[in-house]
Amino acid sequence: MKILILNGPNLNLIGSREPEVYGTDNFDSMMKELAKQFPQIEFVYFQSNVEGELINKLHEVGFSFDGIVFNPGGYTHTSVALGDAVKAIKTPVVEVHLSHVMKREEFRHISFISPAAAGTISGFGMRGYVLAIQSFLK
Amino acid sequence: MKILILNGPNLNLIGSREPEVYGTDNFDSMMKELAKQFPQIEFVYFQSNVEGELINKLHEVGFSFDGIVFNPGGYTHTSVALGDAVKAIKTPVVEVHLSHVMKREEFRHISFISPAAAGTISGFGMRGYVLAIQSFLK
Amino acid sequence: MKILILNGPNLNLIGSREPEVYGTDNFDSMMKELAKQFPQIEFVYFQSNVEGELINKLHEVGFSFDGIVFNPGGYTHTSVALGDAVKAIKTPVVEVHLSHVMKREEFRHISFISPAAAGTISGFGMRGYVLAIQSFLK
Amino acid sequence: MKILILNGPNLNLIGSREPEVYGTDNFDSMMKELAKQFPQIEFVYFQSNVEGELINKLHEVGFSFDGIVFNPGGYTHTSVALGDAVKAIKTPVVEVHLSHVMKREEFRHISFISPAAAGTISGFGMRGYVLAIQSFLK
Amino acid sequence: MKILILNGPNLNLIGSREPEVYGTDNFDSMMKELAKQFPQIEFVYFQSNVEGELINKLHEVGFSFDGIVFNPGGYTHTSVALGDAVKAIKTPVVEVHLSHVMKREEFRHISFISPAAAGTISGFGMRGYVLAIQSFLK
Amino acid sequence: MKILILNGPNLNLIGSREPEVYGTDNFDSMMKELAKQFPQIEFVYFQSNVEGELINKLHEVGFSFDGIVFNPGGYTHTSVALGDAVKAIKTPVVEVHLSHVMKREEFRHISFISPAAAGTISGFGMRGYVLAIQSFLK
Amino acid sequence: MKILILNGPNLNLIGSREPEVYGTDNFDSMMKELAKQFPQIEFVYFQSNVEGELINKLHEVGFSFDGIVFNPGGYTHTSVALGDAVKAIKTPVVEVHLSHVMKREEFRHISFISPAAAGTISGFGMRGYVLAIQSFLK
Amino acid sequence: MKILILNGPNLNLIGSREPEVYGTDNFDSMMKELAKQFPQIEFVYFQSNVEGELINKLHEVGFSFDGIVFNPGGYTHTSVALGDAVKAIKTPVVEVHLSHVMKREEFRHISFISPAAAGTISGFGMRGYVLAIQSFLK
Amino acid sequence: MKILILNGPNLNLIGSREPEVYGTDNFDSMMKELAKQFPQIEFVYFQSNVEGELINKLHEVGFSFDGIVFNPGGYTHTSVALGDAVKAIKTPVVEVHLSHVMKREEFRHISFISPAAAGTISGFGMRGYVLAIQSFLK
Amino acid sequence: MKILILNGPNLNLIGSREPEVYGTDNFDSMMKELAKQFPQIEFVYFQSNVEGELINKLHEVGFSFDGIVFNPGGYTHTSVALGDAVKAIKTPVVEVHLSHVMKREEFRHISFISPAAAGTISGFGMRGYVLAIQSFLK
Amino acid sequence: MKILILNGPNLNLIGSREPEVYGTDNFDSMMKELAKQFPQIEFVYFQSNVEGELINKLHEVGFSFDGIVFNPGGYTHTSVALGDAVKAIKTPVVEVHLSHVMKREEFRHISFISPAAAGTISGFGMRGYVLAIQSFLK
Amino acid sequence: MKILILNGPNLNLIGSREPEVYGTDNFDSMMKELAKQFPQIEFVYFQSNVEGELINKLHEVGFSFDGIVFNPGGYTHTSVALGDAVKAIKTPVVEVHLSHVMKREEFRHISFISPAAAGTISGFGMRGYVLAIQSFLK
Repeated sequence: MKILILNGPNLNLIGSREPEVYGTDNFDSMMKELAKQFPQIEFVYFQSNVEGELINKLHEVGFSFDGIVFNPGGYTHTSVALGDAVKAIKTPVVEVHLSHVMKREEFRHISFISPAAAGTISGFGMRGYVLAIQSFLK
Repeated sequence: MKILILNGPNLNLIGSREPEVYGTDNFDSMMKELAKQFPQIEFVYFQSNVEGELINKLHEVGFSFDGIVFNPGGYTHTSVALGDAVKAIKTPVVEVHLSHVMKREEFRHISFISPAAAGTISGFGMRGYVLAIQSFLK
Repeated sequence: MKILILNGPNLNLIGSREPEVYGTDNFDSMMKELAKQFPQIEFVYFQSNVEGELINKLHEVGFSFDGIVFNPGGYTHTSVALGDAVKAIKTPVVEVHLSHVMKREEFRHISFISPAAAGTISGFGMRGYVLAIQSFLK
Repeated sequence: MKILILNGPNLNLIGSREPEVYGTDNFDSMMKELAKQFPQIEFVYFQSNVEGELINKLHEVGFSFDGIVFNPGGYTHTSVALGDAVKAIKTPVVEVHLSHVMKREEFRHISFISPAAAGTISGFGMRGYVLAIQSFLK
Repeated sequence: MKILILNGPNLNLIGSREPEVYGTDNFDSMMKELAKQFPQIEFVYFQSNVEGELINKLHEVGFSFDGIVFNPGGYTHTSVALGDAVKAIKTPVVEVHLSHVMKREEFRHISFISPAAAGTISGFGMRGYVLAIQSFLK
Repeated sequence: MKILILNGPNLNLIGSREPEVYGTDNFDSMMKELAKQFPQIEFVYFQSNVEGELINKLHEVGFSFDGIVFNPGGYTHTSVALGDAVKAIKTPVVEVHLSHVMKREEFRHISFISPAAAGTISGFGMRGYVLAIQSFLK
Repeated sequence: MKILILNGPNLNLIGSREPEVYGTDNFDSMMKELAKQFPQIEFVYFQSNVEGELINKLHEVGFSFDGIVFNPGGYTHTSVALGDAVKAIKTPVVEVHLSHVMKREEFRHISFISPAAAGTISGFGMRGYVLAIQSFLK
Repeated sequence: MKILILNGPNLNLIGSREPEVYGTDNFDSMMKELAKQFPQIEFVYFQSNVEGELINKLHEVGFSFDGIVFNPGGYTHTSVALGDAVKAIKTPVVEVHLSHVMKREEFRHISFISPAAAGTISGFGMRGYVLAIQSFLK
Repeated sequence: MKILILNGPNLNLIGSREPEVYGTDNFDSMMKELAKQFPQIEFVYFQSNVEGELINKLHEVGFSFDGIVFNPGGYTHTSVALGDAVKAIKTPVVEVHLSHVMKREEFRHISFISPAAAGTISGFGMRGYVLAIQSFLK
Repeated sequence: MKILILNGPNLNLIGSREPEVYGTDNFDSMMKELAKQFPQIEFVYFQSNVEGELINKLHEVGFSFDGIVFNPGGYTHTSVALGDAVKAIKTPVVEVHLSHVMKREEFRHISFISPAAAGTISGFGMRGYVLAIQSFLK
Repeated sequence: MKILILNGPNLNLIGSREPEVYGTDNFDSMMKELAKQFPQIEFVYFQSNVEGELINKLHEVGFSFDGIVFNPGGYTHTSVALGDAVKAIKTPVVEVHLSHVMKREEFRHISFISPAAAGTISGFGMRGYVLAIQSFLK
Repeated sequence: MKILILNGPNLNLIGSREPEVYGTDNFDSMMKELAKQFPQIEFVYFQSNVEGELINKLHEVGFSFDGIVFNPGGYTHTSVALGDAVKAIKTPVVEVHLSHVMKREEFRHISFISPAAAGTISGFGMRGYVLAIQSFLK
């Protein structure tokens, strides 16, 4: 089973950026933990701040992988193109947000990804990625 | 560990109501499965079509239980009072929706529960309840 | 043929409440008149001010009765849950309003029941109930 | 007793236009049926695609007829002038729609006729015209 | 000097229609009074309930007359096409309303004619036509 | 003189719920204090989380009591039915809010009760109930 | 007959301010011309940039003068208080605008004065004041 | 104890202005009555139609008086500057409205003063001033 | 192959009306050029300022012609009835605009015709008609 | 003559992505067909999912090519920067959309490219590119 | 070189008002510092809480001074009249805000002054005045 | 002291693009001038049309540089991700716009960068960069 962990803009800073909001964990340690917790799954990790590279990656794996866990960051609320990409591929995509977007600014209450996603998990911090992976398991 | 599974209006019909949207499973069989899958957790199930009875139940368990998995159904989008109730209690509440509300009518895109919830899980059908329970586990 | 006459909040006051708007007839006399006018139909009358009890009643009769004449009163404009209930049942529901809601405050121009109803009859006073019943006749 | 059946734009196509929405009946057969069902009523039928001709007709009969059954079609949602005409005449006007306008595009949820109409009947297909006529009977 | 008095929908009813709003004068007597008061002006009077005939009339006189006094009635608030016609012709057009549209329903606060008109006079009843004519005088 | 103190959803938690917003007083001690301060008034206290039970209580006392002090809680901002109930009864209703609703979320700035209330008192905490009672005194 | 010509903010600059929009005439010469043209009328002229002084002046003359010609300038679109003042006095007020406000920025399309004014005259430049005065004449 | 009674635009006309809305009492008699009813309080009365003079007065007393009862009249709905002034001073301000603003035009439903006020009392006529003063008493 | 060139309101003035926006060509010369350029096509030209006559023409040819090139002029942005007519007929309709409507007033950005049209061509002046015809060719 | 065919995000998937909406043709075959059909034109094809690379390409060719046929895909509705780029260059840009954007979600009805484009062609599938090229021919 | 420093409502309190937002500096010390730092410039300082007096001052110096540094305070967001005044004068006006208005309440995001100002400087505290003065230097 | 001058989309064209709006200066000459004017500051210049590369650059220097002068161009109004990036880094960011965005299209009045920026300077052309740099100096 192959799953892509796909992170959008500014998520490379997690661990240093606004730790009072996002905590101090980072994705390096999370990926190691995931490898241990789900040895039967082959994980690929990709992060980019460039909207189009996220689209490229969705295209690249979106017809062969078994699942994509996607945190689109700030592009969630503005990117019609990313929503189209999620809709265009075959691999199911689960949308994840670290913080609960509904508790933040009103412009973060809109998601162009959700209408194309298999489901959305929001507000559980890094644990949300684990829940998303569990959603792909039988 | 004690967890309340709290279902709002019309969810008593699940299994018969619009099966093309919600599937044919029902909550009786789900509760049995949960008991098997999580033997360490004591589950309480409550469903009501009356907004105020949902508030009463949140008040009743909301200072002693370890978690509440709450699907507020149609009240999600209209009930300030339920959102206030979730905010007023101490037990963390995870909001669950069977279908992906963001794919449906625009009035379902608003949630008065989300700003008070620990997190939200939407679009995974009955499996969403399991993910919500897993979010309470260490 | 079985038909439920279902009245929502404040309709128990009809005859006393704002008679200049709603007239001085009440539902007791109307039910007697209906029984006389439509002897072939078995009528059940139910009124409640509790949103959830209206949902309960819709569930209770909504898979066996031949028709429901429903005046949701003030819940018309705010209840997603009642609209979901009407959509979930099998019995066709005709929405009735005593006054013409389009002539009143703007928040009364929206109906969450209409999109799920078989049809809507608005502005004919008590006579609207008779028209609704006639709509169920061959 | 004299009643005008007044049909607005595109209703001349009924029977051929979008039959999956409007059915295959047409107004010729309906008028014959009405004549049979209500022999005591003198019916006049008028249809026009021209907004101003509908206004002219309302003016012409609106001070002498006993009732007008008016389906304003697409002008329902855009014509202040037709609403003014209905308000200016003495004969009561019942607004009828074949399909349930509240189930269709949002711009069809607004009616400039309703605030001036005696009542509105929506969603009952051709049967709606019969209900409207019955509303004029004692 | 040639001036067209152009009246839109329902203004043919003035004198009978809602006299509590519009008074009991009618345009026949007004035209006679105008002829007396302004003997140096040749008046043409035209009224139609058909939007397109008003456009036709604007086109017909709009390159030769010295002024047009135009009360577009209910089309004021909905007709882009009439606004375009006023803009397309050479003769200056003064917009007149009998009642003060800003005191009535909100949809009457918008005018598609005003942005193309030389000026607007609103709220003076029939006297508004006289003021409009005076605006064309030296 | 008979006055109903009517409290809506979540107000049973006052004293424990969000004390930093609502303080630590509760309604038991307030009712005792009121009895002392206004010995000439007979007070009835009723609280419910069920919208329809609040309507029932308004109907029950609304034709015999001298005044109702009503804090509709979260239903303030969403309940057309409660507003209708206040409008339908004879007893004057004074709307009270503990916190100043205008300082909180935007959806709390709207009240369906205010247009039917005799007056509104907002932002004075428990003292607001006393001011409301004083408003009923000569 | 006594008429107040009341000018709001920035109208003291007329003649120098944006002459391409407002022309090069000023109110000194206009007042002289008015005195000549209407010898039977006693004119008072008042201009202020202070909203409250305009209110004061309306109060001062508003129970004794025969008419007020009022150009509220930029306060037209923002001043509830000026609208209240116009409504509170007895003397009829005619609202005048030099340019056609409907051709300018959208925030200039709203008038808080119009709903309280006897009528509005817009777009005729300085000539609008003359038309307004004529509206007061028999 | 020193309390300022601060009245905004047009309130100097109370007693004469729209008596069917505001009654026939005036503030002279009210101030005398207040002096009798609350002999322990030193009252200062100030009214102005000029927004900036109201700000000046708030600044002048706002660091030494014990309370301000403020009816901002029409500036309630438009004055960010007055709201800022109330927020900037130390003396608590209670906002009072004679009529119930929520029953009037929609633009009167917004208050720029409320978010800075200690509380708001609306709809009790002149009695509202007394309630406001009582709110300052122990 | 039969194609209708259908022009809406004010397009009869093209060549004279606002030449700086629409150029100086007119439809007479265009029709001659089309006949030369597409000898295999039988063209019918129809223009009307009356909305209902445009509907009539669409009905008349809409079940037998091979294509309709339709410039609805100002009715584009306001006519639900024309959009319904385009939807009701069988012949494919291509919507054409001379100027680029998206560069003009905001009310011109909405089209009630587009959702029913086969395609839209906007901004190419008279050349847009040729492109529309080419779209019907194999 | 040199023309750039510029495709935005997800258009590389055309032929595989949602074929029920976009058909099964792809741009490889289209480019070959264009070369055959327009031998006098030198075509350059460029596709990118990266918004900034589309801007780069517009800058690169936008001062030397004779025309650009641009399908901005999902960036159409969100990219101010792309609209600015189209406006900044000298080469005329024709905007093309495969499907009719006006028939899809409301957020697709807005285009930031249209106000800067020479014209827009929407709803003709791949044929739209051919029409766009024809628009550049004499 | 002559520059007016013009401050609007509540800015006289700076140093005492909400020091956590605006700091403890005041304009007396700032003016002294400016005199030292820019000895070649003649500064005039004016502050008023009265909107009309700010307009008066703009008129007074706006045809002779070399620059105006204007902090309109709360009038920024509500005063069409002040924006008109800035537009009417010849002296360039630079708008300054102490705090960053875009970080505060949404009603502070709108400025009626900006469209008429030479430029805007926001968020730099008292230093913003210095930057504004530097913008006037060669 | 190290300062990054960061320019967003289309700013590479400055000097050639719309010179009537942006002037004919370019950033090459500006950078030279800055080096001369501020010899104590080490400047780095970076421009990209790719949103994500701007985010990358902000991350790269945002924890070590002393200041960033950022003109986000068209991304100002659409990029949540860039706003998040500015918020996530430690180096203070001053937002600069060449033209006064408040004088242009309404969609340019919104900035996702401003709420995260230290301050904003708009409308001073290239001089705005100098003012921004001066804001970083003691």
